[in-house]
Amino acid sequence: MERDELKALLRSVAEGETSPDGALQSLRLDPVKSLGYAVIDTHRSLRQGAAEVVFGAPKTPEQIRGIVSAMLESGQKRILITRLSPKKAEALSDIEGFVYDGTSRLGIIGGDRPADGIGKIVVATGGTGDIPVAEEAARTAEFLGNEVVRVYDVGVAGLHRLLARLDDIMDASVIIAVAGMEGALASVIGGLADCPVIAVPTSVGYGASFDGLSALLSMLNSCASGVSVVNIDNGFGAGYQASMINHIGRNDI
Amino acid sequence: MERDELKALLRSVAEGETSPDGALQSLRLDPVKSLGYAVIDTHRSLRQGAAEVVFGAPKTPEQIRGIVSAMLESGQKRILITRLSPKKAEALSDIEGFVYDGTSRLGIIGGDRPADGIGKIVVATGGTGDIPVAEEAARTAEFLGNEVVRVYDVGVAGLHRLLARLDDIMDASVIIAVAGMEGALASVIGGLADCPVIAVPTSVGYGASFDGLSALLSMLNSCASGVSVVNIDNGFGAGYQASMINHIGRNDI
Amino acid sequence: MERDELKALLRSVAEGETSPDGALQSLRLDPVKSLGYAVIDTHRSLRQGAAEVVFGAPKTPEQIRGIVSAMLESGQKRILITRLSPKKAEALSDIEGFVYDGTSRLGIIGGDRPADGIGKIVVATGGTGDIPVAEEAARTAEFLGNEVVRVYDVGVAGLHRLLARLDDIMDASVIIAVAGMEGALASVIGGLADCPVIAVPTSVGYGASFDGLSALLSMLNSCASGVSVVNIDNGFGAGYQASMINHIGRNDI
Amino acid sequence: MERDELKALLRSVAEGETSPDGALQSLRLDPVKSLGYAVIDTHRSLRQGAAEVVFGAPKTPEQIRGIVSAMLESGQKRILITRLSPKKAEALSDIEGFVYDGTSRLGIIGGDRPADGIGKIVVATGGTGDIPVAEEAARTAEFLGNEVVRVYDVGVAGLHRLLARLDDIMDASVIIAVAGMEGALASVIGGLADCPVIAVPTSVGYGASFDGLSALLSMLNSCASGVSVVNIDNGFGAGYQASMINHIGRNDI
Amino acid sequence: MERDELKALLRSVAEGETSPDGALQSLRLDPVKSLGYAVIDTHRSLRQGAAEVVFGAPKTPEQIRGIVSAMLESGQKRILITRLSPKKAEALSDIEGFVYDGTSRLGIIGGDRPADGIGKIVVATGGTGDIPVAEEAARTAEFLGNEVVRVYDVGVAGLHRLLARLDDIMDASVIIAVAGMEGALASVIGGLADCPVIAVPTSVGYGASFDGLSALLSMLNSCASGVSVVNIDNGFGAGYQASMINHIGRNDI
Amino acid sequence: MERDELKALLRSVAEGETSPDGALQSLRLDPVKSLGYAVIDTHRSLRQGAAEVVFGAPKTPEQIRGIVSAMLESGQKRILITRLSPKKAEALSDIEGFVYDGTSRLGIIGGDRPADGIGKIVVATGGTGDIPVAEEAARTAEFLGNEVVRVYDVGVAGLHRLLARLDDIMDASVIIAVAGMEGALASVIGGLADCPVIAVPTSVGYGASFDGLSALLSMLNSCASGVSVVNIDNGFGAGYQASMINHIGRNDI
Amino acid sequence: MERDELKALLRSVAEGETSPDGALQSLRLDPVKSLGYAVIDTHRSLRQGAAEVVFGAPKTPEQIRGIVSAMLESGQKRILITRLSPKKAEALSDIEGFVYDGTSRLGIIGGDRPADGIGKIVVATGGTGDIPVAEEAARTAEFLGNEVVRVYDVGVAGLHRLLARLDDIMDASVIIAVAGMEGALASVIGGLADCPVIAVPTSVGYGASFDGLSALLSMLNSCASGVSVVNIDNGFGAGYQASMINHIGRNDI
Amino acid sequence: MERDELKALLRSVAEGETSPDGALQSLRLDPVKSLGYAVIDTHRSLRQGAAEVVFGAPKTPEQIRGIVSAMLESGQKRILITRLSPKKAEALSDIEGFVYDGTSRLGIIGGDRPADGIGKIVVATGGTGDIPVAEEAARTAEFLGNEVVRVYDVGVAGLHRLLARLDDIMDASVIIAVAGMEGALASVIGGLADCPVIAVPTSVGYGASFDGLSALLSMLNSCASGVSVVNIDNGFGAGYQASMINHIGRNDI
Repeated sequence: MERDELKALLRSVAEGETSPDGALQSLRLDPVKSLGYAVIDTHRSLRQGAAEVVFGAPKTPEQIRGIVSAMLESGQKRILITRLSPKKAEALSDIEGFVYDGTSRLGIIGGDRPADGIGKIVVATGGTGDIPVAEEAARTAEFLGNEVVRVYDVGVAGLHRLLARLDDIMDASVIIAVAGMEGALASVIGGLADCPVIAVPTSVGYGASFDGLSALLSMLNSCASGVSVVNIDNGFGAGYQASMINHIGRNDI
Repeated sequence: MERDELKALLRSVAEGETSPDGALQSLRLDPVKSLGYAVIDTHRSLRQGAAEVVFGAPKTPEQIRGIVSAMLESGQKRILITRLSPKKAEALSDIEGFVYDGTSRLGIIGGDRPADGIGKIVVATGGTGDIPVAEEAARTAEFLGNEVVRVYDVGVAGLHRLLARLDDIMDASVIIAVAGMEGALASVIGGLADCPVIAVPTSVGYGASFDGLSALLSMLNSCASGVSVVNIDNGFGAGYQASMINHIGRNDI
Repeated sequence: MERDELKALLRSVAEGETSPDGALQSLRLDPVKSLGYAVIDTHRSLRQGAAEVVFGAPKTPEQIRGIVSAMLESGQKRILITRLSPKKAEALSDIEGFVYDGTSRLGIIGGDRPADGIGKIVVATGGTGDIPVAEEAARTAEFLGNEVVRVYDVGVAGLHRLLARLDDIMDASVIIAVAGMEGALASVIGGLADCPVIAVPTSVGYGASFDGLSALLSMLNSCASGVSVVNIDNGFGAGYQASMINHIGRNDI
Repeated sequence: MERDELKALLRSVAEGETSPDGALQSLRLDPVKSLGYAVIDTHRSLRQGAAEVVFGAPKTPEQIRGIVSAMLESGQKRILITRLSPKKAEALSDIEGFVYDGTSRLGIIGGDRPADGIGKIVVATGGTGDIPVAEEAARTAEFLGNEVVRVYDVGVAGLHRLLARLDDIMDASVIIAVAGMEGALASVIGGLADCPVIAVPTSVGYGASFDGLSALLSMLNSCASGVSVVNIDNGFGAGYQASMINHIGRNDI
Repeated sequence: MERDELKALLRSVAEGETSPDGALQSLRLDPVKSLGYAVIDTHRSLRQGAAEVVFGAPKTPEQIRGIVSAMLESGQKRILITRLSPKKAEALSDIEGFVYDGTSRLGIIGGDRPADGIGKIVVATGGTGDIPVAEEAARTAEFLGNEVVRVYDVGVAGLHRLLARLDDIMDASVIIAVAGMEGALASVIGGLADCPVIAVPTSVGYGASFDGLSALLSMLNSCASGVSVVNIDNGFGAGYQASMINHIGRNDI
Repeated sequence: MERDELKALLRSVAEGETSPDGALQSLRLDPVKSLGYAVIDTHRSLRQGAAEVVFGAPKTPEQIRGIVSAMLESGQKRILITRLSPKKAEALSDIEGFVYDGTSRLGIIGGDRPADGIGKIVVATGGTGDIPVAEEAARTAEFLGNEVVRVYDVGVAGLHRLLARLDDIMDASVIIAVAGMEGALASVIGGLADCPVIAVPTSVGYGASFDGLSALLSMLNSCASGVSVVNIDNGFGAGYQASMINHIGRNDI
Repeated sequence: MERDELKALLRSVAEGETSPDGALQSLRLDPVKSLGYAVIDTHRSLRQGAAEVVFGAPKTPEQIRGIVSAMLESGQKRILITRLSPKKAEALSDIEGFVYDGTSRLGIIGGDRPADGIGKIVVATGGTGDIPVAEEAARTAEFLGNEVVRVYDVGVAGLHRLLARLDDIMDASVIIAVAGMEGALASVIGGLADCPVIAVPTSVGYGASFDGLSALLSMLNSCASGVSVVNIDNGFGAGYQASMINHIGRNDI
Repeated sequence: MERDELKALLRSVAEGETSPDGALQSLRLDPVKSLGYAVIDTHRSLRQGAAEVVFGAPKTPEQIRGIVSAMLESGQKRILITRLSPKKAEALSDIEGFVYDGTSRLGIIGGDRPADGIGKIVVATGGTGDIPVAEEAARTAEFLGNEVVRVYDVGVAGLHRLLARLDDIMDASVIIAVAGMEGALASVIGGLADCPVIAVPTSVGYGASFDGLSALLSMLNSCASGVSVVNIDNGFGAGYQASMINHIGRNDI
């Protein structure tokens, strides 16, 4: 809860417009709406300017439907559902305005917000296998109002492929570097670019990649300055933070 | 074996009522009943005041049925079967008084013991995906004679949701904090509450959650005092210990 | 902040006794006192009934002295400083009422609170090498107002030693089981006792004990019900939670 | 190759009975028979007195059949096939004298060798879920000529169950302790018994058991003297070594 | 090498002003200056607008001095030396304009750049022990031209301490959350704030903190959106990226 | 890009034959061909003399077909597709000249290059279960123009089997040692042979083999000089490097 | 407590010679002697035929002296103190009959028991660096009454060195294989020998040996039958078990 | 033992020149010389053409001196002692012809062999901190008769530095890539070069570099073909194998 809202509430109590008990109630219960299995923060889009995001993986279609309904009722216009399996997506396909993207496994209601960021977000991948995670990042950023440039399959074992896209790298305001295996892409891009790089390790690989651990450690130890890291396969997290960075100093992410 | 029983037995030997060989026999063989594949501690409900618990996961339906029958024959009234798959539950559904709870995967014979604890046990979760583990804890505690308050989906990324349930947190005699991913719920609740907190890490998450390792380590390193931890996804263990704590100083758990 | 305090404050605003700005100030700044490098929760002993605890390891003697002074000034009577090296202890030795225990590495100001728990707390160790951690637990529990029974060097490789202390085990209201190496003590005690067991893995051992990891995993996987675990070598955490459990249903820990 | 055989061969060369080239051939190629995908040590039963063992897991039924045929042809009488799935066993069921044990997943050709060991081998388990691994150990030992006593479901959380079988424990010449979860059984038995204990960690458990790692580390760190450890779920290895120990000082294992 | 420079060079070749061999030489050797043990990128401040940073830990004082001299000669005005031990700092103390900060272990030549970022960078810590890492972040950000607000010792076990600084949290353009042990600070701040959060796990803790691994995993699994992570104890990396973010859309970091 | 090509290009600019913009274009875009989801390095067979290799595992049959078509169009004659499942292979079976090897899971277009290496490459395995990985190495080496000698099932537990093939070991110019479980084969061969040994750990095993980690660590710690290691199950990588070594000092690998 | 003793005690109660309370006392307190910091099992040499062993590492010289005195008073003749630092050894040097061996870090009181085992125990090492651990095993076995043959520095990278000692290997009744780094020695010896092999991984090595983890995993995964493993650097444990095996079927270890 | 030697020996037996017992002796004992604590393979320089190498780390100066003396006596001319601390080096400084290199911690007797390899070996490092390991590799290769080109401090975060040395990279016959932190250097060089790359992870770094684990995993997962890996900080192993590769097809390494 923000300072101003709190102040206003207290003033309203002081002026007798709100009773202490009512204020207490308001402080406690108002901004959330409980469904028993989930608690929805209906004030969040006001507070953070963000559409609410639903993490779809551990929820049943019924739970997702319930949460979405409650959000729409409370005035939410745009909803992003992440890690949504094709099967669950099908079960939700009758919701008005629902669109499903199979590559990124994202479900979107209400469409993308118009792109209004400071610059462009580049999403780069080391290989073809990293594309699903990259698309999760790219589509999330687009959903949140950003122009996205895709630079795919430019792994460091073939520097020519990466250097051929140097203009895009140099023009970015934020770069999301998505790579599995040895995850060296983040360091090389971090050394070339002038902007923040968000590294996303992926679970692409086998053996000693240990389901993404190798790429994760590699990215955390990047010798390039300006690189930070999100969880393995967390394309959404990278897209979300990139959007925040691309809207720095503005009211919304 | 308790001191008093041992003393009584020895006295009975001293008074000639029991022969040494019989006493030896009694010390060795009596309180357990062997089925070949399992050994049942038929004196346990006397010794610990607890109903016997059957760990269902690694056993065949036939083995579980055999164990349950032996228990019922020896006078056990209430039996809890944990980690019971729906398929195994179906195979046991003809046992008299058997009830199965699909969410917690618990099978219960003989119903819950009347609630007679010192206070209330709060079971809180970080997200919707943690509910199956939380229900294992909650139903176990109820089975063992406790009143349970559920506070679900109050993860720390939305403090409002948690603070809205502050009264429940403050009123608890024991709190079970169930969370996956970064497991921060235990620390935040531990800092707010005046009572012991039992933290249950869950395997909800992906990538660097490493099937619950992240939440486990996080909870073990909690900077809040008064937090202890059970195994990943071990709702039963948390519910059982919470019940013990909630019956401290009484004869039964 | 508790419900009643908040209500009182709001009422005071409603009655004009407190201005909205003052209330805001009070909500924000009052219960904590900032030293720049540390923020002291001066209301905590009211809220949780607990003396404040200072984690000494990462702090300089100067920082500890500053924190202690601020606490004493705000009316705190009993202070516990954990993980205090002998050298730091010496640097603090001129503080009035300061006592240092070299085995547990605890510094105590204001002495122990009178023992007023529900029952006795048993602290057991597997070996002689576990005693420093055990003493941290025992002295913490005594400081917080508990009677403690020490049952040391009763590791499971010599069951006679443990069974010789069976009376103490059976009489406890809470047991703290401290063990390194394979950490089996917690399971064996957990199977014998009727009360909650808090297991403390220690870093005693070598090779594949991996600085306590072996004992930690062992304890988390205990097949005995009623066992929970704290961090490796965290005697303080075990003593603190044991005290909480031993005061369940009373106002103070 | 043993000293005596080598000496005899060299002598035969010296006496002109064998040509140098023939000797070389003999040294190199004789004792093994190559199938392309496998090399069979046809002299092994002479050298080690042991029947040959086939590790079935990574081989196709065709490969196993080929290996078995080559062994039988070279005069092998008893063959043990480990980690044989029911499906593969079915595919081999027409081999003469082939018997399959579903619990231990062992296939046996030629039956058990008559029991001729120094004493009895005790196979103990912590729980019911450990029985398949225990049976692999027990049946292997029986196959190799040992009398086996089974002591199942005597985990340390219920000491009575274990103490009720104390006579068997005390009479053993070797004990195989099979346990998952915290693996404490090995330490407790190691403390009670006068004979070597071979500990077998199992993958029974969940969460922080990490597929047997917890039991493995626990057993390696046993505070009881006289305990050694084999790989997780390696019932065969334990049974084989126990048989070796039980035949110490005799010509055969 | 940037597009424009390359184009200019090629044009100069086309116009005969530069010979092909000279161009080749220039492409290869110019922007770097070799000292044998180190290669200095003398064009970097042009390319990235950043002062050059020297990673002091693995270098001898002589190597650092050599690198610094070469940089100053090539016109570099501001140099930051990280992870500089007090002993090495003393050995460098005669360099003109060299200033050493013992808490952050940073050596600075040429002073801070005037603060010209979009907003303020907040650096928060969970405890007092995290301050050295936090200062590395804060001083790095100040060196690179940012206003920094310090919010120290506001760990989640005492939410009051954090909420008392809510205004600072809400006003930040970027937040650096520094915490050891369970690392929950990042998630709680991530849930409260509207801006990007860079999480820095620290090695503060003991036992199952595994030198920062616990905090690292916790932060990577944060359930709050908008959080990314740098290496354990990498205050510099967080400060550097925060500065980049705080200068997005401007020419310099 | 090689020195000579670059020099030629610059000369062509200097002589006015190529415009600066054209040269820039050429430097950036020429040697790669983009399919959106993949970027093909069409100059690679010139630069490295190697046929291009497609990592099949993370790609859809459609993507593989697209990549293969683009390669063939650009003049590539021989293509190797690794980690190709039988199902995907079937979907590609209509491509002209496509041959699939089920054991090694390799798809080959254009057949093997004539063997022209310095000597023979020996591929040895510890057991029968390692053969699929060994065949990946052997077939890769044959594809790249090498004579390969297979020495299978010569694990160190039966030294006779290995010594029987000593001539092959001693004659090799490079040896690839493929083994799971304890991976000791690499050390024993490394001690016997005079040539470089490339060790390939495999995921064959169970329990504490941790999917190949045991063999990997074992091989990395080999006490034999002259052994290096590739990723777990990476037969391709070993075959590729062995071919490079076997063509040292010649123009092609 | 053994069956016969228990029976005798009960009989004595039945015949009125012992009172029930006395029997209880005897059952509980007799066989152990408490020093506060340690509990000594004074009946152990009767029960197990073994001299008592003191694990010296975590104990102060004063504690060791106290334990030794209590043992000697209760009639113990031979005492082995393991992991005794030179400094502690010096502090104990005035104890009558105390001898210290610096290589194995063992302190011995009362000298070795006459060798009366079934056969010889061979202690083999991979390298020179493994000798301290090997000596701990060898001296322990000698202390417990075994003839020991040392076969040092016969690592598998030089098979000749091992084969030169083949007679000793073939003659052993038990072999202790001590090796660090890749730990392959155990597998090779296991394949050559006819007797049980106890493998001792050592922490000799660097990098990916991870303080003995590599050798430990390697030995656990040995493809040779008849190999079991003790903790890293646990020479004592191997020597103790080897002695047990070498006395199988006799009354003493 | 090689085929020809064995054949000759057998022939000599056949011709009565050697007695069977003598032949046996010769087979067993000849090629090695035992010092008790070490066994020296005096035939090795014949068999492998390599000078013997002494791993100095775990040996005392006395042991090293003894080994060196025995080697010199048996005619060895060149000896390399690795991981030799300055202190041990000083203790050996009176040995004739002994030279110590402090950076690489190598002691050399008899000087370098004349360079006679196929081409040049390039040793590259990511940073200045990697130089000690790189020098171990470089000096080892020079000792074994190779020309070495050093390309230091060319980490991937500054591609210009690496590209400036492209000629050296392209001219190499083998490349040793030495890097800590994220270890990306191996992949980038592997993509650029036409020759085998041996990657050496170093323990340079902090936090999540986990003493070289990050670089090790990164290098094992390299997406560039032709890269193999040695142990962390194992410069010697890389230099040794590089020399072997650089002498392929010749009689000596």
